[in-house]
Amino acid sequence: MTDREQFMHRALTLARLGEGRVSPNPMVGCVVVKDGRIISEGYHERYGGYHAERNALLSAEEDCEGADLYVTLEPCCHYGKTPPCTEIILEKKIRRVFVGCLDPNPKVAGGGIRILREHGVEVITGILEEECLRLNEVFFHYIRTERPYVVMKYAMSLDGKIACHTGDSKWITGEAAREHVHLLRKRYSAILAGIGTVLADDPMLNCRTEEGVDPIRVICDSCLRIPLDSRILQTAREIPTIIAVAGNTLKMPGAAVQVMKIQELGAEVVSCGEDRVDLSRLMELLGKRKIDSVLVEGGGSIHGSVRDEGLAQKAVIYVGNVLIGGAAAPSPVKGTGADRMTETDRLENITVEQLGDDLCITGYFPQHETVKGE
Amino acid sequence: MTDREQFMHRALTLARLGEGRVSPNPMVGCVVVKDGRIISEGYHERYGGYHAERNALLSAEEDCEGADLYVTLEPCCHYGKTPPCTEIILEKKIRRVFVGCLDPNPKVAGGGIRILREHGVEVITGILEEECLRLNEVFFHYIRTERPYVVMKYAMSLDGKIACHTGDSKWITGEAAREHVHLLRKRYSAILAGIGTVLADDPMLNCRTEEGVDPIRVICDSCLRIPLDSRILQTAREIPTIIAVAGNTLKMPGAAVQVMKIQELGAEVVSCGEDRVDLSRLMELLGKRKIDSVLVEGGGSIHGSVRDEGLAQKAVIYVGNVLIGGAAAPSPVKGTGADRMTETDRLENITVEQLGDDLCITGYFPQHETVKGE
Repeated sequence: MTDREQFMHRALTLARLGEGRVSPNPMVGCVVVKDGRIISEGYHERYGGYHAERNALLSAEEDCEGADLYVTLEPCCHYGKTPPCTEIILEKKIRRVFVGCLDPNPKVAGGGIRILREHGVEVITGILEEECLRLNEVFFHYIRTERPYVVMKYAMSLDGKIACHTGDSKWITGEAAREHVHLLRKRYSAILAGIGTVLADDPMLNCRTEEGVDPIRVICDSCLRIPLDSRILQTAREIPTIIAVAGNTLKMPGAAVQVMKIQELGAEVVSCGEDRVDLSRLMELLGKRKIDSVLVEGGGSIHGSVRDEGLAQKAVIYVGNVLIGGAAAPSPVKGTGADRMTETDRLENITVEQLGDDLCITGYFPQHETVKGE
Repeated sequence: MTDREQFMHRALTLARLGEGRVSPNPMVGCVVVKDGRIISEGYHERYGGYHAERNALLSAEEDCEGADLYVTLEPCCHYGKTPPCTEIILEKKIRRVFVGCLDPNPKVAGGGIRILREHGVEVITGILEEECLRLNEVFFHYIRTERPYVVMKYAMSLDGKIACHTGDSKWITGEAAREHVHLLRKRYSAILAGIGTVLADDPMLNCRTEEGVDPIRVICDSCLRIPLDSRILQTAREIPTIIAVAGNTLKMPGAAVQVMKIQELGAEVVSCGEDRVDLSRLMELLGKRKIDSVLVEGGGSIHGSVRDEGLAQKAVIYVGNVLIGGAAAPSPVKGTGADRMTETDRLENITVEQLGDDLCITGYFPQHETVKGE
C-alpha cells in the first residue's frame, strides 16, 4: 500500500463509524495530512450533522494551510443541511485534495472537484476507488437509478438444492450461517420473498439480532393466497409489510374483501403487473417509496425472475454442508435461465467466507444498467 | 503440535515420497528417534522393496538400541515379499513404537502390535491417526471392502446447475479448476461416466497432465447407445475402456452385433443388472478386477444413483463462478434424493480450495459400511 492509499484507508475506516446513523446520506471519512502525518480526522457522524471534511478541518489543532486532505467521497458543492464542503476546504487553504470516488449524486457529479480546481486546489481522484464505491454501494445505486439495490440471497446444498423433494428444508445451513443471515437483513431496507416461501415455512422474515431494525417485508403474492393467520400478517402492525398482487387478481370476485382483511391486519396491498407480479415494476414502486435496498430471499421462481430480468446487483449465496439429491428437489434459481454459457452471469469481486462447515459466497453482478444523467 | 506429533508428521511427509510407486501397497513412512532427535528415516520406496521400518533401521548410522520408532502404519508381522517388520524392530532392540494407524489388512489387523507387546516393546497407537488413515484412504477401503473407493466429482454453477437448459456446459469452471480435474484423475484407477455425458460432450476422459497414467474408462450405458465413432471407443485400444450394459439390453435383437463391433474397437462389454446398469454390482465387478478406486464424473442420474445407494466415500465438488438459472437446467445429483433433511449426508472433514474464481470443496461421506472381519 502506498502512503496515499494508507491515508485513504484510514479515511475509509473512519467513514464506517457512521454506519447506520447517516442514512439516507452516504458514509464519508476524511483525514488531513501535513508533512506526511495525519494532523486531524473526521467523518460524517449522523444524518443532518456536518460532513466529514468539515468535521476534520474544524477539529484540527494545527493550521491546515498547505495541508493535504483525503476524503472517501468527492466534496459537496451545494447548500444542503450544511454549507458546501468545498467552501471550508478553500477557506482553510488546503493545497491538495485526494478523492476516493466521485459523487454520483446529480447535485454534485464532479462539480465539487471542478470548483476546487478552479480555485487552484490540486485534486487527485481514484485513490482506493473500488473500496470507496463499495462502502456506499447501496446509496450510489439508489441515487443513480432511483431503484433499490437488489441482493439475491439463498442457501443451497452442496448439490444445488434448496429443499428435499418433499419440501423439507430445515436446515440446509448450520447455526453460524443462519446467524449471518440475520446480520445481513439488518443491512437492507426491505426483504422480498415469494408466497411459496410463506406457505411452506410461515417465516417471520425479521431481524433477530440485537439492535436490529426489522426491514420492511415485501411478499410477492400474485394470486393473493397469503393466509390471514400467517405470522407475516399477524405481525404486520409491528413490522411494515407490503403484499404485492397481480392486477388481474384484484378483478376476481371476492378480492376486495380479502384485500380489506389484509389491510385491517396492518399490511399494505399493492398492485403490480397483470397476470403475475412484475418484479421490475415492483422495484420501481419500492424505489419511489424511498426503499433503497431489497434483500431477495427466494424461492427459485422469484430468483429466476430476478436473474432473467437482470434485476440484481449482488448475490449472497450460502452453501450448506449437505448433499440432498433428487431430480425433483427444488433449485435456487429457476425461470428460463441462460441459453448458452456465454450468456451467463459471472460474478465480480467474489469473496468466500467459511461459517462453520458452510460457505458464504458473495459477489457482484456485472452491471449493464443505464445510469441517469450520463 | 506435540513432539510426538511432529515426529509422526515427518514420517507422513516421508511416506508421501512413495506416491505412485508403491501401489497396490500402502504408502508408509518411518523415523527413528533417540534422545529427542531423529537419528534415521525411511519410507516404503517402491512395490516389492523394503518396508519403511526396515529402510529406516538399516540406514541408521547410530545404534538403535533403546530408541523410539515412529511409523505411520502398524508394522507388518507376516512374510510377504520381504520379512516382517516386527522382526527387525525386535532385533534392533527398539524400546517404544509409536503407530499412526492400525493396518486394516486382515493379514496384520493388530497382529503386529500384539507381537511387539508380547516381546516387551511399548506400543503407543493413534498418533495423527486421522492423517495416517487419509494418506492411504483408497488402499484401506479397498482392502477392507474389496470394492473400489468411490469419489463423486462434479462441477456446478453458483446456483447448482451442471449445464444450461439447452445442454450447453462449456465451461462451468475456469482453467485452474479444469487443470485440477486432470490431476485428480491421475489419482484414481478408473473414471466412470454415463452415456448421457458421452452423447452430449463426446469426451476423452483421459488425464492430460505430464506423467499422467490414464485411468480405465468405465461407461454406464444401459441400452448400448454409445456411438462407434465416439472418441471413447475410437481410443479404446490406447486407453482401457469398459462399457457396462444392462443384461436385458443384450437380449435385444442386434445387440450381439453391436457388442462385437465395440469389442473390435478394443473396448470390453460387461453385463450388470437387468433393465439398467446396477451400480452397486458394477462396483463389485470392478473390485474383482483389482480396480481399487473410481472417480465418478456424473451426470446427475449416475450421481443420483451413487447417492441413493450410498456408494461414495468422498466428494470433490467444483463450484464455478457462474449463475446459469433455469427451471429446466440439469442438476448435479438427481435420483430420488433424501426425503427429509435429517436423512441427508453431511460431509466430514470438509476442505475448501479457491481455484481462480472457482471453488473446490472436498469432503468425506459418513461411512455406514460393514467392514470385513470386524
